[in-house]
Order: sequence, then C-alpha cells, then structure tokens
Amino acid sequence: MERRNPDIWFTEYQTKHLRLGLSIKSVLANIQTSYQHLLVVDTDQYGRLMALDGAIQLTERDEFTYHEMLTHVALTSHPAPRRILIVGGGDGGTAREAVKHETVEEVVLVDIDQEVINASRRFFPSLSSGLEDPKVNVLAMDALEYIRGRSGEFDVVIVDSTDPVDFAEGLFREPFYRDVFRALNEGGSLVAQTESPFSDPDILTGAVSEMEKVFPIVKVFWGAMPTYPTGMWTYTIGSKVHDPEKPMGQTPPGTRYYSEEIHRAAFVLPPFVEEILQGRDR
Amino acid sequence: MERRNPDIWFTEYQTKHLRLGLSIKSVLANIQTSYQHLLVVDTDQYGRLMALDGAIQLTERDEFTYHEMLTHVALTSHPAPRRILIVGGGDGGTAREAVKHETVEEVVLVDIDQEVINASRRFFPSLSSGLEDPKVNVLAMDALEYIRGRSGEFDVVIVDSTDPVDFAEGLFREPFYRDVFRALNEGGSLVAQTESPFSDPDILTGAVSEMEKVFPIVKVFWGAMPTYPTGMWTYTIGSKVHDPEKPMGQTPPGTRYYSEEIHRAAFVLPPFVEEILQGRDR
Repeated sequence: MERRNPDIWFTEYQTKHLRLGLSIKSVLANIQTSYQHLLVVDTDQYGRLMALDGAIQLTERDEFTYHEMLTHVALTSHPAPRRILIVGGGDGGTAREAVKHETVEEVVLVDIDQEVINASRRFFPSLSSGLEDPKVNVLAMDALEYIRGRSGEFDVVIVDSTDPVDFAEGLFREPFYRDVFRALNEGGSLVAQTESPFSDPDILTGAVSEMEKVFPIVKVFWGAMPTYPTGMWTYTIGSKVHDPEKPMGQTPPGTRYYSEEIHRAAFVLPPFVEEILQGRDR
Repeated sequence: MERRNPDIWFTEYQTKHLRLGLSIKSVLANIQTSYQHLLVVDTDQYGRLMALDGAIQLTERDEFTYHEMLTHVALTSHPAPRRILIVGGGDGGTAREAVKHETVEEVVLVDIDQEVINASRRFFPSLSSGLEDPKVNVLAMDALEYIRGRSGEFDVVIVDSTDPVDFAEGLFREPFYRDVFRALNEGGSLVAQTESPFSDPDILTGAVSEMEKVFPIVKVFWGAMPTYPTGMWTYTIGSKVHDPEKPMGQTPPGTRYYSEEIHRAAFVLPPFVEEILQGRDR
C-alpha cells in the first residue's frame, strides 16, 4: 500500500498576503537549476505539480484549462497556422495542444532551462508527449536571443512563460514584442499569458500597453485556472491582421476547456477588468 | 498607527487536501452562534472577511462577483421582478444588488442566523446597507419553514446559502425546490449557488438533478470568484417560463462583474463541465 502523510504541505505564496496549500504524498524533485528552483511534488488534490521558484506552473488535473486556452484561441483564429514558436513551455503542454491542429507542420519550442524539459519527460508524460512529437523541435536556450533578427518565419508565437521576473521579465516588454512581430509572417499573431486581474493588474496592463506599441490589434481574453492566483487568468493576443475573437479553424477533438463558444465568451470581460484596461494610461 | 503582524494567518481548508491562507491584521469577531461558528477578520489581501464554520462567505474585495452574478442573471431574465425572496444572505450583499432593480417592490430576506445579520451590520456596512433599504424585510428564521405552504408570492427566489451541510442541506433537495416552485408566481424562477465543478462536482450535479424534478427549465452558469474553492463558481437557475440565458430587464448601473454580455457568456460552459452535467444520471 502507498504510504501517505497528509500533514506534509506544499505552499505557494501567491502574494505576500495570500497562499495556496496542497497536501502532498511525496517530493519527486527538489533542485536548483542554473536558472531557478524546480520542485515536483505529488499532491492529493491535483495530482503531480511542478513549481518554479515556488510558483505553481502546472498540476496534472487542471493544466488543461491553461494550455488549451493559451494555444487554441490563437491557432483557431489564424486561417492556416503552419509554423509555431513556443517561448518557454518546457513542460510540453502547449506543444501537445499545438500539434493537435492539422495545419501545423512545425513547432519550435525554446525554453531556457533544460532541467524543466528533463523533469517533464521524467514526471509528466501526459505533457511531455508534446515534446516527443516529430513535428516539435526542442531547443534549450534563451528565447530573447533565439528570436532576435528572425524574419517572417512563424505564423503564431506563444509565450508560455513564468511570471515577469528575472530572465522572464524581457518577455513582457516592447523590444521582445518587436522582435516577435518581425519573426511573424504577414497574418501572424502573438499570444501570452498575462496573469490575474485581481492579484496582478499591473502586469496585465503593462503587457497590453507594450504590445499595443507594436501590434495593430491587441485583445485580452480570460479563463478559469484553479491553481493560479485567484483562479481567474488572462491571456493577451497581439495580431497583425486577423481578429482573434473569431475562430476560423477547426477545434481539435477532445478539448476539455476550449470550444468555439468558449473562445467567443472568453473575450467578454467583466466591467472591472475593462476598467483596469481603460485606466492603464492614466 | 495600526499594529500589524503579517504572521497571523486565517486558513480555510477548502477540501481535506487544499487550503487557502490569508494574512490578517486583526480578528474582529470569533463566536459560536446557535447555528455555526462565525469569524470576522481583517485580511491584508482582500479586506474584511466573514467565515462560517471555517468557510469563507465573503471578502470586501471580491464579494461583488458572487453577489452580482447570483442576483442579476435571475432578475434581468424576468420581465418585471417585483417580489424577491432571499434565502440566507444575512450579510446583505444579495439584497443590496436586488434593490438596484427599479421594478423590485419588496425583498424578503430569511436567514436562520441573527448573529450573521448582526455581524454584517457591525463590520460590513457596504453589504449591510442592503439590509437597511426600506424595501427589504429581514427575518431571522429557518427558510425551510418560512416557505412551506406559501403560494404564488414571489417572482424570484435567490438561494444565497452556505455549503449543503447541517441546516443548509435541505436547501439543495427536491422538497425545498417544490416548496419554492409553489411560492413562485407564474413566470417565476429560482437561482442558487451550486459550488465549483473542480472541487465539488457532486453538489452541482445533485442540485441540477433535484431542480429538474421540479422546474421545466434548468440551466447552469458560472463566474470567477477568487476566494471560493478553485475560483470557478457555478450557479443554477430553475425557471417556470422564461429562458434564463436571455437578459430582458435593464442592467443596474455600477455593476463591476455583471453585464448583459457577461450574462450570455456565463452560460457557455467548458466541455468538461458539460461532461460532468451529462454524466450525472449514469
């Protein structure tokens, strides 16, 4: 019989004053990589969990909402996404979703931390399956360097990053968005996770403002995500031509959070979020 | 200067394996009433918070999402809601939202626990203002008793209850829904909070199944609610005649979560929630 001790808890300090606790069965990895602290634990509530620098990146039971929304809104609002760049996302969840689209020919995944990729292959086979797909090309390097100077190579760039601190900070700024714009084809778009409007409205408004300096169309959408702070998560999409609110492509089979109807509904923002966005230049 | 100690925490065990922690500045009330334990604390993250039997009922900063969705979806999908019954809701937040509708002539609020009403009047003036409105008639008694035998008196009944344990258990069962049906006018409807599809899918499916034994139209909608388990909250509406998905009435001014567009979008359920609902009779 499996040994269990319900009195060991993993705790994420989501803010200085707010924490989420999950009882755990075991600690599977607990290392300092060259870039961050990496923890893998087996939780009772949500299955296996990966945290980077103490912040929950994914759990087996709810990662589908985040990875589906981050991927499918952008890919279905592009008429024929062929080449996809994933920035971060070393766990493979976003790649797994991207290759579900029949039009996709190649996915380049650039994560700075090889240890995240290794940990996913070892502990999260249901996510790392995305890394093993023959269409997926995995590179362990700094995405800021990778993208610099590239031109017209990708249809969609997906920023599946950690919070904007340390090496990820540049992923929320205009210079990076300008490099992404150049790296995109004519009808291309960029989508990024942009945190919670309840706990981090400044990150959301900052990303939107920076993206608007570069992309003619910038829109925010949202979804539920239980293990991220406040459970309400935003995504921001910058597009050269196509309206991201309108799904055109086929929805891949087997989605559990995403649907065409959810796609449209996700762009309906509660008035308090609209107010946060409208107030950002004041 | 206010004394602060960031190392005092209020913790809600949302499930046996999941807990939410909030650092607090002070404990304002900590009593056992005749029905439940009542705690009021001042949190750093969300302002003042009320917990009953350890479960967060409301915080000053995010109660608007719950109270607006619980109230306005039902009231705007009724052509002219005049008489409203609130079951529970002793804090006053739902009453505050209900009286914003111009058609509303009377609100009867029946909460079993006078101490909840008292605590709200003392510590939550922005909610208890709803209790002081001249249209609102506050009764401290068991709603199961209040409603029994009433006929054709209300246009909308709002069940603003605690989780279905102890005295609140009956509020999620067919006999109560049958009493509510009789107490409603011809075009009447019932709306109830029905927990999270992530953490308590059985409560959701149970309420829907019981409601469907009584009401010809039963629909589920959802919204974000940071301090409730998983942050994704459902509401279920049972209607005699009118389609609850279609807002007809005017949206009251000043809503921060609710809008007509959010109303429609809230009925779009992610596929995994549809699956939970479809699987309930298997």
